[in-house]
Amino acid sequence: MSGNTFGKLFTVTTFGESHGIAIGGVVDGCPPGLLLNEDDLQHDLDRRKPGTSRYTTARREEDEVKILSGIFEGKTTGTSIGLLINNTDQRSQDYSKIKESFRPGHADYTYQQKYGFRDYRGGGRSSARETAVRVAAGGIAKKFLKQIYGIEIRGYLSQLGPVAIDKVDHDVTNTNPFFCPDDTKLEALDAYMRDLKKEGNSIGAKISVSATNMPVGLGEPVFDRLDADIAHAMMGINAVKGVEIGDGFDVVNQKGTDHRDEISPEGFHSNHAGGVLGGISTGQELLVHMALKPTSSISISGESVDIHGKSTDIITKGRHDPCVGIRAVPIAEAMLALVLMDHVLRHNAQNKDVNSITPVIPASRP
Amino acid sequence: MSGNTFGKLFTVTTFGESHGIAIGGVVDGCPPGLLLNEDDLQHDLDRRKPGTSRYTTARREEDEVKILSGIFEGKTTGTSIGLLINNTDQRSQDYSKIKESFRPGHADYTYQQKYGFRDYRGGGRSSARETAVRVAAGGIAKKFLKQIYGIEIRGYLSQLGPVAIDKVDHDVTNTNPFFCPDDTKLEALDAYMRDLKKEGNSIGAKISVSATNMPVGLGEPVFDRLDADIAHAMMGINAVKGVEIGDGFDVVNQKGTDHRDEISPEGFHSNHAGGVLGGISTGQELLVHMALKPTSSISISGESVDIHGKSTDIITKGRHDPCVGIRAVPIAEAMLALVLMDHVLRHNAQNKDVNSITPVIPASRP
Amino acid sequence: MSGNTFGKLFTVTTFGESHGIAIGGVVDGCPPGLLLNEDDLQHDLDRRKPGTSRYTTARREEDEVKILSGIFEGKTTGTSIGLLINNTDQRSQDYSKIKESFRPGHADYTYQQKYGFRDYRGGGRSSARETAVRVAAGGIAKKFLKQIYGIEIRGYLSQLGPVAIDKVDHDVTNTNPFFCPDDTKLEALDAYMRDLKKEGNSIGAKISVSATNMPVGLGEPVFDRLDADIAHAMMGINAVKGVEIGDGFDVVNQKGTDHRDEISPEGFHSNHAGGVLGGISTGQELLVHMALKPTSSISISGESVDIHGKSTDIITKGRHDPCVGIRAVPIAEAMLALVLMDHVLRHNAQNKDVNSITPVIPASRP
Amino acid sequence: MSGNTFGKLFTVTTFGESHGIAIGGVVDGCPPGLLLNEDDLQHDLDRRKPGTSRYTTARREEDEVKILSGIFEGKTTGTSIGLLINNTDQRSQDYSKIKESFRPGHADYTYQQKYGFRDYRGGGRSSARETAVRVAAGGIAKKFLKQIYGIEIRGYLSQLGPVAIDKVDHDVTNTNPFFCPDDTKLEALDAYMRDLKKEGNSIGAKISVSATNMPVGLGEPVFDRLDADIAHAMMGINAVKGVEIGDGFDVVNQKGTDHRDEISPEGFHSNHAGGVLGGISTGQELLVHMALKPTSSISISGESVDIHGKSTDIITKGRHDPCVGIRAVPIAEAMLALVLMDHVLRHNAQNKDVNSITPVIPASRP
Repeated sequence: MSGNTFGKLFTVTTFGESHGIAIGGVVDGCPPGLLLNEDDLQHDLDRRKPGTSRYTTARREEDEVKILSGIFEGKTTGTSIGLLINNTDQRSQDYSKIKESFRPGHADYTYQQKYGFRDYRGGGRSSARETAVRVAAGGIAKKFLKQIYGIEIRGYLSQLGPVAIDKVDHDVTNTNPFFCPDDTKLEALDAYMRDLKKEGNSIGAKISVSATNMPVGLGEPVFDRLDADIAHAMMGINAVKGVEIGDGFDVVNQKGTDHRDEISPEGFHSNHAGGVLGGISTGQELLVHMALKPTSSISISGESVDIHGKSTDIITKGRHDPCVGIRAVPIAEAMLALVLMDHVLRHNAQNKDVNSITPVIPASRP
Repeated sequence: MSGNTFGKLFTVTTFGESHGIAIGGVVDGCPPGLLLNEDDLQHDLDRRKPGTSRYTTARREEDEVKILSGIFEGKTTGTSIGLLINNTDQRSQDYSKIKESFRPGHADYTYQQKYGFRDYRGGGRSSARETAVRVAAGGIAKKFLKQIYGIEIRGYLSQLGPVAIDKVDHDVTNTNPFFCPDDTKLEALDAYMRDLKKEGNSIGAKISVSATNMPVGLGEPVFDRLDADIAHAMMGINAVKGVEIGDGFDVVNQKGTDHRDEISPEGFHSNHAGGVLGGISTGQELLVHMALKPTSSISISGESVDIHGKSTDIITKGRHDPCVGIRAVPIAEAMLALVLMDHVLRHNAQNKDVNSITPVIPASRP
Repeated sequence: MSGNTFGKLFTVTTFGESHGIAIGGVVDGCPPGLLLNEDDLQHDLDRRKPGTSRYTTARREEDEVKILSGIFEGKTTGTSIGLLINNTDQRSQDYSKIKESFRPGHADYTYQQKYGFRDYRGGGRSSARETAVRVAAGGIAKKFLKQIYGIEIRGYLSQLGPVAIDKVDHDVTNTNPFFCPDDTKLEALDAYMRDLKKEGNSIGAKISVSATNMPVGLGEPVFDRLDADIAHAMMGINAVKGVEIGDGFDVVNQKGTDHRDEISPEGFHSNHAGGVLGGISTGQELLVHMALKPTSSISISGESVDIHGKSTDIITKGRHDPCVGIRAVPIAEAMLALVLMDHVLRHNAQNKDVNSITPVIPASRP
Repeated sequence: MSGNTFGKLFTVTTFGESHGIAIGGVVDGCPPGLLLNEDDLQHDLDRRKPGTSRYTTARREEDEVKILSGIFEGKTTGTSIGLLINNTDQRSQDYSKIKESFRPGHADYTYQQKYGFRDYRGGGRSSARETAVRVAAGGIAKKFLKQIYGIEIRGYLSQLGPVAIDKVDHDVTNTNPFFCPDDTKLEALDAYMRDLKKEGNSIGAKISVSATNMPVGLGEPVFDRLDADIAHAMMGINAVKGVEIGDGFDVVNQKGTDHRDEISPEGFHSNHAGGVLGGISTGQELLVHMALKPTSSISISGESVDIHGKSTDIITKGRHDPCVGIRAVPIAEAMLALVLMDHVLRHNAQNKDVNSITPVIPASRP
């Protein structure tokens, strides 16, 4: 059923296959009066775009987004916003050999079984190509959240294979092709990726996304808690296998005295919760981590079957990222923006504007 | 906005506060003709019930569920099913002292800020008491899934503080108050909990839930992927801070050759994916893990503020589980059942009955 | 699919059969801070209640509503509100003879075919008994709309069989059992109903519902226009076969110069539109009419078939209203309140509070 | 809130303004395997297209629909379908004079008030231009319903001003520019429209839409009854002010013995209900009527105010239909197709395929 719409009040409905004519979508529920043009969205699309470094796929798509409606005299009108990105680089021939067999670790098998047949060109709908529309739509949310609420959303790489990031300097993140916020790790990343590429293999990654200057009060218990909706958004990004809020899996071995964020008139002492209590934002930094699997599109042969169930071997040629986690950073930012935007509207529908809540305490101690 | 409904086709809408008159809900979308009575639901309610061991809260609620509608001559009619559980043990006096201050790590602060005031009796709506309704509703889904599709849903404890579980024997799980599937760890758990109780502290846990005999084909990309909806469901359980599908965060340091589950005519060689590819079930075991934080309801004093922002100290007295993760096992099972039920209906709406798909390969090698 | 929830932001989910244990529902999305108790809802339930006049069914149900949650210290908390009405008068024996055959004009045939079997006791879920919950839920909306926006919702009988109402005096409506707003027609109605009862027949009716002191701006084009959502709500009331906004079917023979409501600085000259333009409220009186069919539950024998398709005759004995349209007046009011409440929240989510819009012109000329 | 999506399982989300770059939308939930191409949709778009007769607006838009995704090898894939129609005829200058004032009877006033400003070019989003996307999306539903269920959807003009249609011959409908199914009335319509055009005025109309070869069982009580969802769809068409199912407002003066459709083993004796009982289809012809107001875009001056509330006069020049009801016939067909498609999927989700229900009796007597 209609699984291509995200959100309840601020909705994004997407369409498009990797190697079809175009991808695009409709953003509905954007308040009127927001100054908006294509440049606002293009920046993040360019960050996500393949071919920007030697470690991401060499596919050159322009990813140029067109806004088809919903803007008048430079401002959103409150009506639905049509987004279109033409597919300019559709080398279907690269993929024709996978028509009859299932790439291990890909959606080939499940799509074929679910729908009876599949658009095998470049993964069709299951390709991450589709996430470009999410990034464009997220750009609208990002701008609104920043402008009206001052909310700042920033993603970064936290770990790539064995290379863990130790410090987070948001100024560093966009200066390198890894979205790495720690400049002491750039060399190690570069070396690791060089070896990996030589090997023809791929690697997993952990990425993080943070929202600062958060209002207190976002989240709709008991099912549409803010953390639950974030988990839905993030686990819905291609290749994500795990999602954490705040301390995440570290809580398993924490005691109550370790974890509870004590409070003083000057603010919370700590932020183990990651900015959410009872499914509602505390006003502290919202901190989300996720794990992305290594892509199965590698040039090392693997065992599989064809669509008739017969044994076969698969090597995925073509242009693929050895670490798909890297490019997921702007996607994760976009998805967080979509969730927060939806929750701002949901909150405001039933309560006074979340902007007008006066927090009892500051979010954090100075 | 109306965050108290879960699901799209098989929906559960809940109401009720910890210390109100009753909790309950409406299950909508259940197909007609399913044999169903209260006993089908009571079993899991009893598993979730507080007071069943010396390590869970001593609160004695009967948690007796009444089915008010939707059943006729012993079978579901296809109309909505009303569920009611009376609150029999409402010792409001235990909680009256927290009326004016915020327990650290609890939803007190966020509810007060979001709504302007809060039902402070026992946590009100933010109490895990509400999950009893989820368990009852999940029982309907569980029975349907088992009867029509043969799907078996089983949860268990995977880790409690430092005590990790090494083997999973589903026959062991329900023989002990920890839902521990590894009988070699029962003694260690018992010892750990005894010490913890003495200390007046609490501990986090990791729990897992598995679905076997899964059909291939469940999940609605690109946003309502099966894994995304599971993440939403699990992160929406009180105290959950992290969710993993399959290898979860271990994928961060896996290579493509490690992770991709190769395929042979006899089935998949492995199940790193945890039973989901491209957001659609593969037919393999569906495997979900989650991390639950230690409860902040402990008898060790903590620093906080009152509703006016003034400094205060909090000790949570009363009857509380030192490890809330344990009792979450039947809740996680219920939530997985609700997700799968919803997805079975969503799949069937657009495609032929998922039961009628003939898998190209067996789910796993013998 | 889950057709038992009404609304998107202010939702009502109902359950219960005519002769089951209880009927009830969950209201979700009510803003916090509204003073509310059971008396606020009971008034309209009593207006809808059968047995209040000699022309409505003699069934005596107390229709006493209990609020199970969502209220604390006399005010709504922003959490979901559980509603329960016990069925106290379940004389199942009256209906046992219709178990095996289909009453013409009733839902017996369609329920049996759709679901494979049906709760035949008193119409089960298809009975208008279920609308009591709508009336209770609508009472919450009514109170909110009145208190926060000053919106006044009033229904009345417009025509009963051949007896058309000529003037609308809202002060008269609730002084008589017909909800007739025209005191010059009371005698004619009384005479007509007496004859009808003697005849053992039933009659159709036209009823109307009005909302005054409306804000301008409610409605979400292009699909969830205010008029469209009202049509959905009204056509969903049992026995309704037609819905009109403003001039309704009279527009078929109107010219543009007749219909367009011209505007002057002092307000609109007329209200042919019934208070909606382009799917959005104008601030004028919102005026809705609907046609209700004569009930098929009459004591004059009719031809039908049994569940095996064999010919049979049906006489509906028992306690039935000769004009179901009359009792639909409070139901229509409740449904309009639910639609308006939902649209107030939907508007406020995306725009500034509808209360803060300054109309360019007054709604109507003095 | 996001009012631009129609449907729950088979959804259509639209975007686009009258004089923007393009209009379009996303159809989600279409089952895989349906043969589909642009020609399937173009036929109805051409029927709706302005400029096809001298009585509809002379605007010449090509209305050529492009399918951007969701089709592979000529068949639907089960993924979302992107639709795009470029606006080729955007003479913005025609409308610039209405920038500062409100046309009476139009959405100008309500859009300006709701959103704070509006796209005044050709009505922006409130223009019927947007319905072209509904017609394209409805074409997909129509094809599916016809091919899989044999359902035939046909609309026609029932009355135009004083000219009532007496007989319905579906073979006649598409032979004339009025969609009039009665060839004895063509001359009267032609004469009436000629006079009307000379007068510079406009006229209302009644149109009808029928679905034959209906399955029994469609509809999801209690709120998403088939008739309720049809009313929502039809009242959401621009200019519609009333909707009837079956006998509609005639029921007001019918008795139970007149209205109830008695049943015999050979089928129903009559169809006063219009094919719906208890909100569920009976298998009989589904019959829906609606009233469309005369457009306010006429060349006879009318009184109004400007956006500052000052008095002004308005003459709507430009190319406008003197009877917008005529062109609404294919729109109404499309909307009925969308509703039925949605309900087929909703039914099938919870029950066995509606195609597999064996009706106890034939729909109608021979």
